Amino acid sequence: MTNFITKLEHAIEKNDSLLCIGLDSDVNKIPEFLKGEEDGVYHFNRAIIDKTAHLVSSYKLNIAFYSAYGMNGLKWLLQTIAYIKDEHPTIPVILDAKRGDIDATADYYAKEVFDAIDADAVTINPLLGFDAVRPFLQRKEKGVIILCRTSNLSAADFQSLPVDNEPLYLHIARKVQKWHEEYKNCLLVVGATWPEEMKKIREICPSIFFLVPGIGAQGGDLQKTMEAGLMQQKTGLIIHSARGIIYAGKDKQFAEKSVEEAEKLKNAINKHRSP
Amino acid sequence: MTNFITKLEHAIEKNDSLLCIGLDSDVNKIPEFLKGEEDGVYHFNRAIIDKTAHLVSSYKLNIAFYSAYGMNGLKWLLQTIAYIKDEHPTIPVILDAKRGDIDATADYYAKEVFDAIDADAVTINPLLGFDAVRPFLQRKEKGVIILCRTSNLSAADFQSLPVDNEPLYLHIARKVQKWHEEYKNCLLVVGATWPEEMKKIREICPSIFFLVPGIGAQGGDLQKTMEAGLMQQKTGLIIHSARGIIYAGKDKQFAEKSVEEAEKLKNAINKHRSP
Repeated sequence: MTNFITKLEHAIEKNDSLLCIGLDSDVNKIPEFLKGEEDGVYHFNRAIIDKTAHLVSSYKLNIAFYSAYGMNGLKWLLQTIAYIKDEHPTIPVILDAKRGDIDATADYYAKEVFDAIDADAVTINPLLGFDAVRPFLQRKEKGVIILCRTSNLSAADFQSLPVDNEPLYLHIARKVQKWHEEYKNCLLVVGATWPEEMKKIREICPSIFFLVPGIGAQGGDLQKTMEAGLMQQKTGLIIHSARGIIYAGKDKQFAEKSVEEAEKLKNAINKHRSP
Repeated sequence: MTNFITKLEHAIEKNDSLLCIGLDSDVNKIPEFLKGEEDGVYHFNRAIIDKTAHLVSSYKLNIAFYSAYGMNGLKWLLQTIAYIKDEHPTIPVILDAKRGDIDATADYYAKEVFDAIDADAVTINPLLGFDAVRPFLQRKEKGVIILCRTSNLSAADFQSLPVDNEPLYLHIARKVQKWHEEYKNCLLVVGATWPEEMKKIREICPSIFFLVPGIGAQGGDLQKTMEAGLMQQKTGLIIHSARGIIYAGKDKQFAEKSVEEAEKLKNAINKHRSP
């Protein structure tokens, strides 16, 4: 079975893209004509996926945007992921769920994200330590994307507290580097809003992929991000964008607008990868 | 509107109990005769709730045990919480979900747990800092139960790293103490497996309720926990037990067995509260 990182590398190569589109689709923000439709969110996602599948390294769905709408929301999430798996099976699906619980419970979360939801990779909060992460690591064909330095303003509240003269997030990076050496399926979340921090994390983890939110609405700078985070092989960053792409258009042509924005960002990213 | 802590205090007083029963009901572990039934998990929970509602301060449902079973699991969770709200409206419902995400996304998680699921309180992972917690704090009628020192063995991996000569979990406790002074709706998760640590947290947070997992299967000691964590007023601890109570019986009389175990633990807890 292909492991997640291999699947990701293949998609990056095939589509020549590090772009990850975030399908964080809120039923209240999709175009008017779809709001009234049954499963409108699913149809919204489908249209965007069909138009952009040749432009991306991966899709990411943040489960919060679906869970907020109860049973219907979960249905739209499952429909969307099943659609990607059926129609675009080479594109990896990342579930952004930031799960984390004690070992016995983490087993159930691993079932949730990998079996019930069928994601290829999931984001994990490491605050509970190794035994909260192990049930995910043990699914070796899956990707385990561990929060290191998040993109939000309050990230520093705890992640930057000084531990032995070094901020906490670098301790997380060192720990994940060790886990990765053993399990070979770790990635890190590193926000584009913190390029200085990203550079330090890259020094500790030279060959771990970073999932990078924060470009676009959150104000992260693409050039600084690419300079700080690219691996020597000009890869290793999964640049995430949601709102700027999926809500680019408001009318029946919304998916075409999304393609335009996705192409723009894909090309802007690639400018920084050329020799 | 009654706030969560007031509702909790009333239930504690009415039932003379600090016990919190964990309805962490796995469809594969409920009695055989219920496994084949439609919504067997819900019927299992209902039977336990009806028999124990006079013995508890609260019920807690860890969402992982439900989410692992997709749409059906979510249905059983919603059915169970609706049942408690309808039939035993004075008993607070805690959703153990350990959510935590950047501010814009945390808004959606708050909708998930408080609106779609209708919990009275939720557990929150603070690693992303204040803006991940604020959308929950702002729901002032709800309880926000923040992870401080979890019960698992690996808790020390990050939670005990030394920050300015003090472990990280005490920094979390200090931060939550401040949030609580402003919002008045915070609680902390402090595992029964760490009584020394609990004592230090109680010094920093003299009037914050602790949700205490770890008694029973995980090996936490009740006497040490009570000595370390009780407030001066002989309250302030919500002692959680799941497996030891809900799986006490295997046949048609399972709920009677659960009552026995619940009564035993309730009384054992109260022995440490008497003057």
